[in-house]
Amino acid sequence: MPSSSDQLAELEPKDIVASAQQQMMKAVVYGGPGKKSLEHRPKPQLQSPGDAIVRMVKTTICGTDLHILKGDVPTVSPGRILGHEGVGIIDAVGPAVLSFRPGDHVLVSCISADGTCEYCRRGMYSHCINGGWILGNAIDGCQAEYVRTPNADSSLYHVPQGADEEALVMLSDILPTGFECGVLNGKVQPGGTVAIVGSGPIGLAALLTAQLYSPAQVILIDLDDNRLECAKRFGASTIINSSREKVVERVMTLTNGRGVDTAIEAVGLPATFELCEQLVAPGGIIANIGVHGRKADLHLETLWSANISITTRLVDTVSTPMLLKLVETGKIDPKPLITHRFPLDRADEAYDVFGRAADTKALKVIIEIMT
Amino acid sequence: MPSSSDQLAELEPKDIVASAQQQMMKAVVYGGPGKKSLEHRPKPQLQSPGDAIVRMVKTTICGTDLHILKGDVPTVSPGRILGHEGVGIIDAVGPAVLSFRPGDHVLVSCISADGTCEYCRRGMYSHCINGGWILGNAIDGCQAEYVRTPNADSSLYHVPQGADEEALVMLSDILPTGFECGVLNGKVQPGGTVAIVGSGPIGLAALLTAQLYSPAQVILIDLDDNRLECAKRFGASTIINSSREKVVERVMTLTNGRGVDTAIEAVGLPATFELCEQLVAPGGIIANIGVHGRKADLHLETLWSANISITTRLVDTVSTPMLLKLVETGKIDPKPLITHRFPLDRADEAYDVFGRAADTKALKVIIEIMT
Amino acid sequence: MPSSSDQLAELEPKDIVASAQQQMMKAVVYGGPGKKSLEHRPKPQLQSPGDAIVRMVKTTICGTDLHILKGDVPTVSPGRILGHEGVGIIDAVGPAVLSFRPGDHVLVSCISADGTCEYCRRGMYSHCINGGWILGNAIDGCQAEYVRTPNADSSLYHVPQGADEEALVMLSDILPTGFECGVLNGKVQPGGTVAIVGSGPIGLAALLTAQLYSPAQVILIDLDDNRLECAKRFGASTIINSSREKVVERVMTLTNGRGVDTAIEAVGLPATFELCEQLVAPGGIIANIGVHGRKADLHLETLWSANISITTRLVDTVSTPMLLKLVETGKIDPKPLITHRFPLDRADEAYDVFGRAADTKALKVIIEIMT
Amino acid sequence: MPSSSDQLAELEPKDIVASAQQQMMKAVVYGGPGKKSLEHRPKPQLQSPGDAIVRMVKTTICGTDLHILKGDVPTVSPGRILGHEGVGIIDAVGPAVLSFRPGDHVLVSCISADGTCEYCRRGMYSHCINGGWILGNAIDGCQAEYVRTPNADSSLYHVPQGADEEALVMLSDILPTGFECGVLNGKVQPGGTVAIVGSGPIGLAALLTAQLYSPAQVILIDLDDNRLECAKRFGASTIINSSREKVVERVMTLTNGRGVDTAIEAVGLPATFELCEQLVAPGGIIANIGVHGRKADLHLETLWSANISITTRLVDTVSTPMLLKLVETGKIDPKPLITHRFPLDRADEAYDVFGRAADTKALKVIIEIMT
Repeated sequence: MPSSSDQLAELEPKDIVASAQQQMMKAVVYGGPGKKSLEHRPKPQLQSPGDAIVRMVKTTICGTDLHILKGDVPTVSPGRILGHEGVGIIDAVGPAVLSFRPGDHVLVSCISADGTCEYCRRGMYSHCINGGWILGNAIDGCQAEYVRTPNADSSLYHVPQGADEEALVMLSDILPTGFECGVLNGKVQPGGTVAIVGSGPIGLAALLTAQLYSPAQVILIDLDDNRLECAKRFGASTIINSSREKVVERVMTLTNGRGVDTAIEAVGLPATFELCEQLVAPGGIIANIGVHGRKADLHLETLWSANISITTRLVDTVSTPMLLKLVETGKIDPKPLITHRFPLDRADEAYDVFGRAADTKALKVIIEIMT
Repeated sequence: MPSSSDQLAELEPKDIVASAQQQMMKAVVYGGPGKKSLEHRPKPQLQSPGDAIVRMVKTTICGTDLHILKGDVPTVSPGRILGHEGVGIIDAVGPAVLSFRPGDHVLVSCISADGTCEYCRRGMYSHCINGGWILGNAIDGCQAEYVRTPNADSSLYHVPQGADEEALVMLSDILPTGFECGVLNGKVQPGGTVAIVGSGPIGLAALLTAQLYSPAQVILIDLDDNRLECAKRFGASTIINSSREKVVERVMTLTNGRGVDTAIEAVGLPATFELCEQLVAPGGIIANIGVHGRKADLHLETLWSANISITTRLVDTVSTPMLLKLVETGKIDPKPLITHRFPLDRADEAYDVFGRAADTKALKVIIEIMT
Repeated sequence: MPSSSDQLAELEPKDIVASAQQQMMKAVVYGGPGKKSLEHRPKPQLQSPGDAIVRMVKTTICGTDLHILKGDVPTVSPGRILGHEGVGIIDAVGPAVLSFRPGDHVLVSCISADGTCEYCRRGMYSHCINGGWILGNAIDGCQAEYVRTPNADSSLYHVPQGADEEALVMLSDILPTGFECGVLNGKVQPGGTVAIVGSGPIGLAALLTAQLYSPAQVILIDLDDNRLECAKRFGASTIINSSREKVVERVMTLTNGRGVDTAIEAVGLPATFELCEQLVAPGGIIANIGVHGRKADLHLETLWSANISITTRLVDTVSTPMLLKLVETGKIDPKPLITHRFPLDRADEAYDVFGRAADTKALKVIIEIMT
Repeated sequence: MPSSSDQLAELEPKDIVASAQQQMMKAVVYGGPGKKSLEHRPKPQLQSPGDAIVRMVKTTICGTDLHILKGDVPTVSPGRILGHEGVGIIDAVGPAVLSFRPGDHVLVSCISADGTCEYCRRGMYSHCINGGWILGNAIDGCQAEYVRTPNADSSLYHVPQGADEEALVMLSDILPTGFECGVLNGKVQPGGTVAIVGSGPIGLAALLTAQLYSPAQVILIDLDDNRLECAKRFGASTIINSSREKVVERVMTLTNGRGVDTAIEAVGLPATFELCEQLVAPGGIIANIGVHGRKADLHLETLWSANISITTRLVDTVSTPMLLKLVETGKIDPKPLITHRFPLDRADEAYDVFGRAADTKALKVIIEIMT
């Protein structure tokens, strides 16, 4: 990721001439492939009856933000404020908002939904025809002092009394993603066997939430010893470094030659997906979480008779209320996913540390906006 | 498929010297790639307490039998009696058989199961460690005057009083295959939209059984106008000849630009599987039935976020009792799948007609053994 | 049901002095137990951003309306406009309404939902904390020239092009009720056996929609020969008049002594519920639809080990879009449920005919408002 | 439970004249209501090809055995050897047994199944037409030195290498019962709320296995402080003594006035079942485990619209392999359920201690047969 410090250096508050009505704020803005900058932008205003304006307290950077910066996400135009995660405080709400009032502490979810379209009625909020993943994508996002959240009733959640708000930032995207795309789609069961390919933040989120169902084994596979050590601490029963070990052989030994009931792909490459095809047992499931840029080979010549399923999914955040209760009652603790913290003024450094995770050992990086 | 009439011509009953104890019978025997012959073979004997000996009345030829003859199925050795479908009459049962007695009219299923192994407990009879698809594969099959059926209690079914036994031959394999691998795995629903790629016997079996769930649309896609006309008669709401029409465009028009809830692959080629990837709607399912000899391209670069599932399955025959009730009560009529009939002595001709289906307009071909 | 014609007679348009701003309309108004009247009332206005005003074209009377008139539904206060079913034309929409515009022809559903509360997220729209069954209950209803529908995006549905609007009135309540509470909760399956106790409109709606799943048998049980004859025409495989026949004995004979997979209670009395307990097979389901005013005996001394389920449900209308597609594609035809039609001015007569169904052979009675 | 020591005193080995062929053994024998005795009986022989003879190592007493002694279970005739739980070593197997050989250490399950009947195909082994709960009921049971187990392949399970065999005795009946009838039927979910009425061995088995699904709260309700203290140690989040506290009020407070998602009845009385009706939230499930001798009141006048389910079930033991893996990998530890141990010669004392659980603080009592 090229440094964008030059752009940042050019921005000075004195350059901004705000009208009396137009309050300004700082925001991380996408400037086209390879470019981002901390800019002063007008504070967002309510536009629709269901909108809320949230004053952001903490946000974070997603792997998807790095994809955007590479120019891989065509729906994001230059000028867009990045970010789709965080916690904040309600600043204003539109007249159709039922559940929130100014001053409420809220979790901002990466997905919003109208709750009534054909997809929402099936719980597929990610494909809502009036929502889905729009923050930091089709509209301005959360890496800013304020954000406008459409469909506030479905994209915001009350922070439980006494909760650690920083830990909750993990519930904007990463935990529901690991849980829904990996664990729920993968039908992890008590006594079952699970392999997770990829021990990055998403793989670890799947690992954390897989344990809610008490599988007998969860095997983590990665190339990075540091991330595998994290996995061990997060509860993996076995870790395998695929640069040194024969993964398929090892997994078959661990599962009496049968393979795993659930293989979770948490990388997004053809090779890791194809590895899952080799690891899955008859009757098992490959649950894809990875964001893929290329096709993979599907070995139907062996799999056609194996009674397997393959699932893909963009997180629907249907599980967010459940995950909030589990964090609240201490059944899961996502806080150890957070390794670094930076103030908004050092957002550039935060991106740099997150982007060089192999070197920096970063998992999730918090950007502190309001302190 | 090369003709094997030369081999057949050489076989004469007078060449067979049977001992007094050893009753002989006629059987269609696999002789290695490209070879099969009608031979005289010893009548099978009970070997295990759960075995039955069935005197075959009618059998049929499966697409899989053609694969065997091409040498594509390595588990089948030369000398093996072919066939895994049919109806017959119990000749003898072992002491552990609970449900059948000599004289009972039975349906022979392509799958047997011990009922107690780990896979059977999950309803995956196809993967039973002591059963599965073994008839005409690991052991001698049904294209013979007698067949030995291990695990008789799970591989045989009583013919309902007054049933048309010929129609029931379709329940040995083709109907449960279309239903379980296509319709059940594809979660066909009232009001849903279904595309079936391939209008051969298996695709038509899926079409017949899909209608048990009252989908709003079932679209059949094939290259063969004759088979598409059959599909129309069997209840397809739309037929598309993929040699003349733009399939994807047409299906999108029929589904308001969304794609189908269920895409059933009933051919077994990369191109037809990849077509299904283009037809499936967000949240939909690709249910593979086809026997594939090669890998296909899985376009994860578009599908990773589409909330789809892909399923594969070897028929488990868990639905056979249900299908028997539906045939018995007239809810489905599989008889029109039968287009030709031959006596066992003309098995070679039966194979030839079935193997040249495009010319002969054959769907399923009955071999009449006992008349 | 006592006649309320005296009240009706007293109302005359000339008595109404409407201000220039306040347009008046006719409406059927609840006046306390035993009382209802056709009155002139102010046309409703938009109150919330998600509201719509619908000009009603046709409505109908529900069994629940009769319960209200008996004083059995304490949430309904005197002065309430009755009715929660019908079709109409959008007159006005609030600024948060996404899917509807003035002039759109719509189906009004008995249930509305905010789409975001804890219950809505689980598809339990009936228990929405900001919605549920409110029309003609907590707020004014549909038996009027205009109705205000809160949460319009979830309580209204576009009338499909070319649809028979009168038939669609059956989709406001009765068809989704029979389908969701009876058929879906009862897990009706291809090849299964179903008993429906009660052959009134709701029982017949369950019968119609049960056939979407191709059960092998659907047995209808009632005391009224006329209703049983209707059931026969609507597709029942067997009808049993419980005043003349031994129901349990007969059902056991029809099911090989086992009982039915699904027993649907569509009456609402202890005796009919307890009959279902005797009819259900091991592993089966009793799906209650009936509105009960008293407790029933649950015979746990026999049922504790029978692996059965009992379900209750207030219709959630999650199936309304599916049912609309099925009516649109001709898979179900609810029109024969309609036996009588009256203009709004003769609403009193409509109530009388519907209330004396045994005599009048009424099933559903349409009230025509706009002609 | 009246003492049966008089009967026991009358039995002396010298009274038994065994033929050379007929080996004798000790067994606890039911003698009619209120009577049991330790007798010498002939060692059982193989009768069917699927039988095994198991030399018992440890067994236990079930609440059902106490019901039998009260004369409540009419299928048990005087002379029947009691018991349907335990671990042992295979002594002999019939020719149709696939998975076991003499010398194998095995768990004896309370349920056997033919694996092929209509009920077995649906996983309802408890209702197998050739099996189900027969041990210590229709045929002689496990409280003996040897037991004949029909359908050995489905009623026996290999003891995992290195397992604590005594702890596994809890997997014959009590753990799968609590898990299947309570936790699986009750659909316990991560983040959900559970109330278990009854903190005896079965309630505690439900509590232990409910935690496999990480519910947010598990509330145990009982009259006995000792048992509630056990519940606390076994992981209950809240305990309520119903003799001192207002249970409904307390549970409503704990669940924000909503009630519990899952109410598990583990007593078997009308009052405790009816309490569950008051505790269950809209959309929730009452999962009955209790063995009931009388009907209960079902308050349909409030529940008809509450979208609840009520389930009953006789344990099917479909979960036994899963539970074995969970014990093997340390995910659950059933050993603390065992409070007392007696040799077979003191079986009478074991019954007495188990029968006076309130006084003796007994949960499960092990009878050691082979030492």
